[in-house]
Amino acid sequence: MLNKIQITAILLWGIFSVNFLSFPVLGITTDAKKTLSFDTSIAEDATPEVLEKVMNSPEVEEIFFEPGTYHFYPDKGLEMFCRISNHNDVFVATAFPLLDRKNITIDGQGATFIFHGKMIPFIVENSKNIQLKNLTIDWYMPFHSEGLIVANDEEKGTFDMQISTDFPYEIRDNQLIFVKEYYEHTIGQSILYDRSRKAIMFDTESYTPVTTSKKGGEQYSLDSIRYRYKVDERAPGLRDIGMESRIWVEQLEPGLVRVHNHGKKMPPVGMVMAMKGEQGENRLAPAIRVVDSKDFQLSQVTVHHAGGMGLIVENTENIRIDHMVVSPSGDRVVSTTADATHFVGCRGEIHISESLFEGQLDDAANIHGTYQEVVERIDAHRLGVRMGHYQQQGFKIGRPGDKIGFVRLSESFFPFHELTLQDTEVLNGRYQILTFRESLPENIAAGDLLENIDAYPAVIIENCKIQGNRARGLLLSTPRSVKVLNNYFHTEMEAILVPVESGHWFEAGSARDLLIEGNTFENCVHSGQNRGVIRFITDDDEEHTAFEKIRIIGNTFRQFDPMILEVNNVDGFLFKANTIEYSDAFPSLFPDNPVVKINASKDLNFTDNTYKGKAKKMIVNTNQNQNIKFD
Amino acid sequence: MLNKIQITAILLWGIFSVNFLSFPVLGITTDAKKTLSFDTSIAEDATPEVLEKVMNSPEVEEIFFEPGTYHFYPDKGLEMFCRISNHNDVFVATAFPLLDRKNITIDGQGATFIFHGKMIPFIVENSKNIQLKNLTIDWYMPFHSEGLIVANDEEKGTFDMQISTDFPYEIRDNQLIFVKEYYEHTIGQSILYDRSRKAIMFDTESYTPVTTSKKGGEQYSLDSIRYRYKVDERAPGLRDIGMESRIWVEQLEPGLVRVHNHGKKMPPVGMVMAMKGEQGENRLAPAIRVVDSKDFQLSQVTVHHAGGMGLIVENTENIRIDHMVVSPSGDRVVSTTADATHFVGCRGEIHISESLFEGQLDDAANIHGTYQEVVERIDAHRLGVRMGHYQQQGFKIGRPGDKIGFVRLSESFFPFHELTLQDTEVLNGRYQILTFRESLPENIAAGDLLENIDAYPAVIIENCKIQGNRARGLLLSTPRSVKVLNNYFHTEMEAILVPVESGHWFEAGSARDLLIEGNTFENCVHSGQNRGVIRFITDDDEEHTAFEKIRIIGNTFRQFDPMILEVNNVDGFLFKANTIEYSDAFPSLFPDNPVVKINASKDLNFTDNTYKGKAKKMIVNTNQNQNIKFD
Repeated sequence: MLNKIQITAILLWGIFSVNFLSFPVLGITTDAKKTLSFDTSIAEDATPEVLEKVMNSPEVEEIFFEPGTYHFYPDKGLEMFCRISNHNDVFVATAFPLLDRKNITIDGQGATFIFHGKMIPFIVENSKNIQLKNLTIDWYMPFHSEGLIVANDEEKGTFDMQISTDFPYEIRDNQLIFVKEYYEHTIGQSILYDRSRKAIMFDTESYTPVTTSKKGGEQYSLDSIRYRYKVDERAPGLRDIGMESRIWVEQLEPGLVRVHNHGKKMPPVGMVMAMKGEQGENRLAPAIRVVDSKDFQLSQVTVHHAGGMGLIVENTENIRIDHMVVSPSGDRVVSTTADATHFVGCRGEIHISESLFEGQLDDAANIHGTYQEVVERIDAHRLGVRMGHYQQQGFKIGRPGDKIGFVRLSESFFPFHELTLQDTEVLNGRYQILTFRESLPENIAAGDLLENIDAYPAVIIENCKIQGNRARGLLLSTPRSVKVLNNYFHTEMEAILVPVESGHWFEAGSARDLLIEGNTFENCVHSGQNRGVIRFITDDDEEHTAFEKIRIIGNTFRQFDPMILEVNNVDGFLFKANTIEYSDAFPSLFPDNPVVKINASKDLNFTDNTYKGKAKKMIVNTNQNQNIKFD
Repeated sequence: MLNKIQITAILLWGIFSVNFLSFPVLGITTDAKKTLSFDTSIAEDATPEVLEKVMNSPEVEEIFFEPGTYHFYPDKGLEMFCRISNHNDVFVATAFPLLDRKNITIDGQGATFIFHGKMIPFIVENSKNIQLKNLTIDWYMPFHSEGLIVANDEEKGTFDMQISTDFPYEIRDNQLIFVKEYYEHTIGQSILYDRSRKAIMFDTESYTPVTTSKKGGEQYSLDSIRYRYKVDERAPGLRDIGMESRIWVEQLEPGLVRVHNHGKKMPPVGMVMAMKGEQGENRLAPAIRVVDSKDFQLSQVTVHHAGGMGLIVENTENIRIDHMVVSPSGDRVVSTTADATHFVGCRGEIHISESLFEGQLDDAANIHGTYQEVVERIDAHRLGVRMGHYQQQGFKIGRPGDKIGFVRLSESFFPFHELTLQDTEVLNGRYQILTFRESLPENIAAGDLLENIDAYPAVIIENCKIQGNRARGLLLSTPRSVKVLNNYFHTEMEAILVPVESGHWFEAGSARDLLIEGNTFENCVHSGQNRGVIRFITDDDEEHTAFEKIRIIGNTFRQFDPMILEVNNVDGFLFKANTIEYSDAFPSLFPDNPVVKINASKDLNFTDNTYKGKAKKMIVNTNQNQNIKFD
């Protein structure tokens, strides 16, 4: 049955088209084997028709949608189990399974796709030359919830939230549970948003996250449980052990909820609390998932929301993104509940341009490899390896022929040995057997880390705007050429974080050829954390070099706080022709910081810069083996 | 490194064998391509070696184990996602994936396999002529927990449990959480066990289950969530909505826990409370899973425990079980946490003999088909169908060529139309598209049920002992020849339940040729429920025939309560040469019941029976259209 909007649309279309087009009546017009067209007669639930045609049209190269709004429900979707890096392992439905396909363009022609529940709008696996363009992705009910702070009482330790009917909830055992279509979440991870700035609130770390849990509760005989092998106490299933609820809530009137016993400062009236449920459970429905593919392109794609990342790409070669928009729809303050874009184990080139990333609850782009850990030597050519993080389960480190580097971070951030991958056998989420072409050398030992030296991309990120999000702008961990050009940053944490990290996220890779040029950084790191706008950091106390050939040229920094740079473990650093200005947007949080903090670094060059800020000192260099001057 | 026990075993073996056997030193002896032998040098964690050899020996036909105790850990096991009927959809590890194999015998030679955590010991898929024999399956830590009732206070509504160190726990937000290897569970489903009788406690329904939850908690805007399609409000994810905890617990001293606010009678001192966590979450690790196979045999297999069923068989032809033992190990009162054996959509013959089923938390054997529900007609040959129960997700109703019957239970329990299955397309757990060879007739409508007429087995169950378990002895739903011969029953609910059921479990099939002969039924239905020892029942109020050709001959009933038979919707019933005796084992719960209750049935014949009981009346026939005499 057609509804009124559809009938109007068809009538309007009829006026303009009836004389020169055949009239589509069944919702699907197949012009030729290579083209599929969908119109809005399927809009009430487009899933079954789109799914059937996509699955049964192996030769199709172009898929068009008539402009309009299409709903996609999971009930008749193709269910897939996906292990996705930096997400939960998920069971989700999709209407667009692009599996083992090539040369397909999906052109929304401006259409909006509204998803319902646990779905991944686009799944691209083992495919080549896939392009998505001119379409908008949103969810009918988001995977996060929002509450307006309307009162607080610092003495009693309570704050009150007004919650709109867009975010249905119930109070269960004195805890706030937001109920969605086919989903529910607790307060879990939370942060404050300032509507007046369209951004995360200044100094939110003093107020959030809501301190939902605490250690507590009697335990009996738990020490009798002994695991034979390493277990991840941070993973769901183990991390709740020994923890109890700290906060409790009461409903004052329908839609008005009081939160008791929060342990930080009470959230200020007028701010919006964004809540997304427990870590490890709240990344379940990214908007676009690409894995094991080549030549993937996004153009003019808007992602208003996702229960996870906007785009997550793994083990893929060449990704091109232009005019992507990640931004909340309607009254919502949050867009995607995790990173706008994220790339793991990719190669070739990642090119992101002319895009807007705002309101997402994590980084705009995070690009890295994956460390795996040696468990044991099985025979002369085989190693048992372990995935370190629970959101890397099942990740394949590479393809046959890839060079795998063995790293012992206590000795060096660079590999001490390289071998050629022959085969990966994924026995379970945590454990794989890797076979190498060469014999294993004697000195590879349990605890050593592996990284894929061939699976790092060159990167260009240019003319993008990154603002109003939680966390970083860019997180860059690749030794290939990286160029960050002419972008704008207004981020809650570091604008650009360049890490080597092995203890928690197991995200491999370090910068060895990084150019940051022509960008504007405005009042970044306003979270309340004491960090540089651009920050090079390792998570070990090692003194050896992690980063090389870093150039930061011709950028403008406009900051309320003195510190611009944190430079650790860098060999070869040029900071040239940058302008640093003072901003009174926020009160200074760390006025005693220098502009530049340096540690364990050498060959640093600061030249031709213009300083208009208020710092009391320019450079603090912990290892005073070099005389560095800021000019 | 060998431990002391292994060294002793090897030395002992050496004494007897060194002169005429080659000495196995690597844990695995491959005598020939067709034989694999494992010895106890791999016993500390047998998973990696067993898995590698099983997977990489496609021609093997015999797998032997040296007698001894072998531990199997999940960490290096093959992880599989399994949708298993009447279980959770599970991710589990296994060391024995028998996938697409044939002619394999695994002979434990008396070995004991101890599993750790979420594993399925044996997974048999799409295989032919597989036999398991002479082995024992147990878990190091069980998936259930037990507490001895040491005190209660009817006035305050509390009872106290003493919990041994075998069942580690913690108290989290005032709730009791039992912590296991890689798993935890709440009190959830619970029942009382009487150690003095090695059986479920008499009249446990008055005391259990522990009333853990209640309706409650404020809700806001939940009515704005509207599902487009049918949803299952009993499924995990939806059923918690609107529910809160009712009970709370406190630790009086380590290992001693007081439970407050239980809503039934307080459990008596001296009984053991068996607890297994929430329904829908506690069937995750059956001992043996068989699906889509032919000619499966179990011989001399003991299952001491499983977190689910002992044996679950789906869509398989010919199953033979002899000398199976399902019985708890050590001090435990519970064996498997669900049925001892369970068969769904099987065909050919199921033959169970000389077996003992005791202490399991559900039926000894449940044999049935599966109803699926018509969602919509897609085209002339295709139907969209829905799986009714969340533990039937992904179940394939049959193979190409199978006869599918369409049933409208309000009109008849027998199909009104039959079609030939051509293809099943499983789009997701709940929704499939079925293609039929013939055109769909006009009268098939949404809501009609489908059953596979070809996928019902003939059954023989003989010389078995079923005792001390929760729930039924046998649950029989197949129209083929069923013979229940010379068994002993001491069950908490019905000894034999013959249902037609469509509203909750969607378990299809009805008896049409059932012989129950030479069995002894002793004090069954002591749960506190008002039911017959043998019970024919439909879950609708329909009057038409569901069951035919029922013969109950030469059995002995020894019961504390009058009622022996409940006969509903039967056409053709012979009750002959049975002896009914009185037992004073328990006080009578329903002394006013007749011996036989009859409704909507015809052609009934009671003859040559001997009655030595205390009933006040013999037969109550609701439809007095027949003059039935008990003699």
